Amino acid sequence: MSSIGYEAWLRYPQLAEDKQEAFSRWCGCIVEAETEESEVMAAAASELSRGLGRMLGITTSARSSRDSSGKGCIAIGTFNGGNESIAHVYGDSGVYPNTGAEGFAIRTDAKSGIIAIGAEQPAGVLYGVFHLLRLIATGTAIDELDIVEQPTNAIRMINQWDNIDGSIERGYAGQSIFYDNNEITKDLGRIEDYARLLASTGLNAITINNVNVHRLETYFITDRFLPDIARIAGIFRRYAIKLFLSVNFASPIETGDLKTADPLDADVKAWWKAKADEVYQAIPDFGGFLVKADSENRPGPFTYGRDHADGSNMLAEALLPHGGLVIWRCFVYNCKQDWRDRKTDRARAAYDHFKPLDGRFMDNVILQIKNGPMDFQVREPVSPLFGALPSTNCMIEFQIAQEYTGQARHLCYLVPQWKEVLDFDTYAQGEGSHVKQVVDGSLFGYKHSGFAAVSNIGDDANWTGHPLAQSNLYGYGRLAWNPQLASDAIAEEWTRLTFGSEERVVHTVVGMLMDSWGIYESYTAPLGVGWMVSPNHHYGPDVDGYEYSKWGTYHFSDYKGMGVDRTLATGTGYAGQYREPNASVYGTLESCPDELLLFFHHVPYTHVLHSGKTVIQHIYDTHFEGVERADGLLKRWNELEGQVDAETFKRAADRFAQQAEHAREWRDRINTYYLRKSGIGDALGRTIY
Amino acid sequence: MSSIGYEAWLRYPQLAEDKQEAFSRWCGCIVEAETEESEVMAAAASELSRGLGRMLGITTSARSSRDSSGKGCIAIGTFNGGNESIAHVYGDSGVYPNTGAEGFAIRTDAKSGIIAIGAEQPAGVLYGVFHLLRLIATGTAIDELDIVEQPTNAIRMINQWDNIDGSIERGYAGQSIFYDNNEITKDLGRIEDYARLLASTGLNAITINNVNVHRLETYFITDRFLPDIARIAGIFRRYAIKLFLSVNFASPIETGDLKTADPLDADVKAWWKAKADEVYQAIPDFGGFLVKADSENRPGPFTYGRDHADGSNMLAEALLPHGGLVIWRCFVYNCKQDWRDRKTDRARAAYDHFKPLDGRFMDNVILQIKNGPMDFQVREPVSPLFGALPSTNCMIEFQIAQEYTGQARHLCYLVPQWKEVLDFDTYAQGEGSHVKQVVDGSLFGYKHSGFAAVSNIGDDANWTGHPLAQSNLYGYGRLAWNPQLASDAIAEEWTRLTFGSEERVVHTVVGMLMDSWGIYESYTAPLGVGWMVSPNHHYGPDVDGYEYSKWGTYHFSDYKGMGVDRTLATGTGYAGQYREPNASVYGTLESCPDELLLFFHHVPYTHVLHSGKTVIQHIYDTHFEGVERADGLLKRWNELEGQVDAETFKRAADRFAQQAEHAREWRDRINTYYLRKSGIGDALGRTIY
Repeated sequence: MSSIGYEAWLRYPQLAEDKQEAFSRWCGCIVEAETEESEVMAAAASELSRGLGRMLGITTSARSSRDSSGKGCIAIGTFNGGNESIAHVYGDSGVYPNTGAEGFAIRTDAKSGIIAIGAEQPAGVLYGVFHLLRLIATGTAIDELDIVEQPTNAIRMINQWDNIDGSIERGYAGQSIFYDNNEITKDLGRIEDYARLLASTGLNAITINNVNVHRLETYFITDRFLPDIARIAGIFRRYAIKLFLSVNFASPIETGDLKTADPLDADVKAWWKAKADEVYQAIPDFGGFLVKADSENRPGPFTYGRDHADGSNMLAEALLPHGGLVIWRCFVYNCKQDWRDRKTDRARAAYDHFKPLDGRFMDNVILQIKNGPMDFQVREPVSPLFGALPSTNCMIEFQIAQEYTGQARHLCYLVPQWKEVLDFDTYAQGEGSHVKQVVDGSLFGYKHSGFAAVSNIGDDANWTGHPLAQSNLYGYGRLAWNPQLASDAIAEEWTRLTFGSEERVVHTVVGMLMDSWGIYESYTAPLGVGWMVSPNHHYGPDVDGYEYSKWGTYHFSDYKGMGVDRTLATGTGYAGQYREPNASVYGTLESCPDELLLFFHHVPYTHVLHSGKTVIQHIYDTHFEGVERADGLLKRWNELEGQVDAETFKRAADRFAQQAEHAREWRDRINTYYLRKSGIGDALGRTIY
Repeated sequence: MSSIGYEAWLRYPQLAEDKQEAFSRWCGCIVEAETEESEVMAAAASELSRGLGRMLGITTSARSSRDSSGKGCIAIGTFNGGNESIAHVYGDSGVYPNTGAEGFAIRTDAKSGIIAIGAEQPAGVLYGVFHLLRLIATGTAIDELDIVEQPTNAIRMINQWDNIDGSIERGYAGQSIFYDNNEITKDLGRIEDYARLLASTGLNAITINNVNVHRLETYFITDRFLPDIARIAGIFRRYAIKLFLSVNFASPIETGDLKTADPLDADVKAWWKAKADEVYQAIPDFGGFLVKADSENRPGPFTYGRDHADGSNMLAEALLPHGGLVIWRCFVYNCKQDWRDRKTDRARAAYDHFKPLDGRFMDNVILQIKNGPMDFQVREPVSPLFGALPSTNCMIEFQIAQEYTGQARHLCYLVPQWKEVLDFDTYAQGEGSHVKQVVDGSLFGYKHSGFAAVSNIGDDANWTGHPLAQSNLYGYGRLAWNPQLASDAIAEEWTRLTFGSEERVVHTVVGMLMDSWGIYESYTAPLGVGWMVSPNHHYGPDVDGYEYSKWGTYHFSDYKGMGVDRTLATGTGYAGQYREPNASVYGTLESCPDELLLFFHHVPYTHVLHSGKTVIQHIYDTHFEGVERADGLLKRWNELEGQVDAETFKRAADRFAQQAEHAREWRDRINTYYLRKSGIGDALGRTIY
């Protein structure tokens, strides 16, 4: 289990000797002298010791006071925790740095030879330790540090879509590390290693079961499973990560003896209240419930003529005495649509359902909104719900698992996509009302808000299947901590931590990561139209795969043209869910950005894009280029042979070869489909079948 | 278990009183006086007693000599079996009727008051009993019978595609009646009832496991399973049905300790010889092996550079000392084709593989050829292999299970389709060389030949899911016995046996059955092009479902036209596999029959059919009409409410409602697909989406 892949970005590879020396002089000892015993502080000290030991080749275990070697020391502690070194470095001024509840400060005090990592809470110290280790690993000088960091988002969550049978919905890296054969795993070591990985990026919350809560998982909130779940909560607690559970809205019927799950029914309310008490008895710092209700055949308040506010508030009342949260997903739409019906628009659904409820939700309810209105496509616009709910706590949901973006077989570094979403201006409070300010709570003063994302890990030896897909998990955590970080900076950080700092490797890998989303987009569904994937498993091309289905996902290609008319004037009106100027920009053919053209407009194949190309020629060109660029990824990677460890090299090389092959399948199917349909040949006369 | 559905066509409903009397005077007793004890004779006597008892309301058990009531009697027995009544009726002339090994004679001897059912063998007596019961049940006078019947085909076989986990490949009527949860069932009663049903139609052979022989089923020919299988063989033996097994060509490796399954390897030969000895030790009248080899990823002789003759002959040698047969399937093609490759033609495959091997197979090998070159489509031409193998035993394979024809949800009475195949003139020995003469062995003097078909039964209470789908199982058996029977005569026979002889019911049901294949064809894939079904499960429309796949099943639709060019001149050359004049008829656009046009030719949508319509208008018209006619089936059935038992009425009404709904889905998807692709509107301006 100690291969490079398994350790991911916490490898702490040994530094070059000259570098070692520069750092070692600060690392004579670790001073950890917290008065109050703390598991998190212990984890922080242990991590620091491990990291320094590996990178610098020294043994530095934690002690309660400085030794007399004369070497520099690293002191870690809470500001008022009893560590004299911390008090010395920070306390002299009388004012502690403003780190907030989870932030940290790192200061190099040359005079006393101390690097002090201080925080209000042990969690902050832990994040500070990971930060210092990251600095050292990436070769950043630490001689004059004076850093204060706070996470931008209060909730920084991972959603596991794991099922108790060991499967993972939309998992592409093996089976669950949490469950096996309808039991909770006994292998808690791997869960602890996962907790370390998450904490190292700054994540602080996890939901450990699938939002589609099946029969057995419905019993997670009963004494049948709570003792085991409490053990898992204990592991995450050491890394300052709160545990949440996905719950089944119909639990009072399915696991209780009630005949209804009506949220306004007194017995139902009492049932959930007692249930919350029971859960908090087992897990006193339990985070709360994540709920997928009235969506894709899941039960919910609609059955009883109630709405999402009724449903979520009822659960929120039960959790309120314990400080628990209800995270309620907005992924609600008609999944039994008739493809003949061109008026109903799945893209409208979340806004149409939730906008009218704004202000009706309790303070400890948060709406979890997918980044786009459809479902984690390679390209779709930002959900118009962001900015539309000034009086309702909101958080954003991303998908680290590459369900529609290559499934751990194609490289697709998603941080640039997420950044685009976060940087989108909703104009909710005038210009500069970016999505990131909605979801960090600052724009509307939300009480609770933040990030959630569907995990991409499984029990594959390297966690994520594709070795480079680790960058998405890492990048998600870093972005949740600080959405201002640049995509390439995160990519470089991850690359250095994972592969070391050989410049050629760093340059190549960062370049590949940064190009990858565009490459994937180029050979798959064009111009924002989405889908065109094989039904069910969502891997590989099938242009009409979802065209005549009930899922509301169409491209309406005919012999003349393609795309979905979502304008106010002649289409579904979806474009009108945005505030101006977005509504007009998207709703007007002339101003709609090329990359979203077919999401908003149905146009002839001969329509000329801003790029100067026709739609049909754009399809041909991007698909031919996409294959060339996928070939290029394989070639670029192959040039690293011998520069990265042989196992990782081979594993990734295999995936890049698959990607190049599958890119051809995408290219040929899509090009052939449109040549056959339009009758318009490629201007360059390339082979289309 | 005694609902009408379960008893199928062996209900023996009580006759009207006036009818009862006319028959009863012949049924004073049953004389069964066989010297040699015979299970089959016992089954025959018991069936006769049961049938007469139910239909005539009398108790007539078998006895060894006539009683003295003065009433007429039915005598059953083999010609030389010691039954004096049989000897009296038939022996007086000194010459017994020529019934062959399996046929029977029925003669009414008015003078002595005996109806004698005589045969060479007990099996013939059993068939004669079922025949007499059928006559009575359908109200045919029996006062002057003088019938001699022989089955046209020596092998009349059913193939079960049942797996030991209880599933049935392409089963649409529940789980297996043979297996459950990786064991052979203990419920032998249901198997016996199945044996009765099969024997009543004249079937005489069964393969009880799937041709795709999976891991556990590979052990069927080992002592782990043979005792249980011998018990099942014992049940079928009582009804004169021989048991066969599908075997895995790689058995010597998978269940033995050999490293090879090379058919020319001495150890492999010895292994199979010993294996055959072992099987015959357990089942002395075992029929033989059915083999799917080198097809759809099944193992076979190709692995060792050998051909199908090498593989089948090796097995045949092992079985020869015991009189066993090897039935070797010709369903062999490249299932990993590249859709870009328009030269490879799956339709050619069986002929290309097996024609060159003609004459190389042993006498106890039979090639089992699917009726068409593709795979049981609603419409495809007859396989050109029929008539192309003068020196190789052949039999035909039909599929009673409606894999591509509505799966027990749509009514599709397949006997008319099978009749068309059987009546096809191959011209192999000049005009009049029909497929039925190939497979009954008469055209080329085959030593072994006949019919096989994939069963459509499961553990649904009524065996076949759709109550009217029983007609296909019944019709298959009757046709195997006598391919000259007319489709409507079989339909009427089945209807009377099942629903009784209320003329309105008979008229309606027979009419519905006879229309059903045409209706199903009209709203599904047009003009012989086939497929257009959802991948994997093969239910419901997906026009491009197999268009970009590896299965060799394409329609090549583009903005101008559609169809597969299989001509010699410009296409794959498949049409040239037929003898003249068929080769020219199919290969020439002008003479190709409309219903197979797109199987043989790629034509523009504006091509005018012999019917006078363009291809595109034909598609629209048939699909609109198909829905109307499917609605008509529901309407016609609903008019029978109160005339058939309520349970059967409701069950079928539900299916007809589903069919009407799904027919709309077919209509709209196919019409929309072609409107979008061609841009040519419906001449009648009907709604296409």
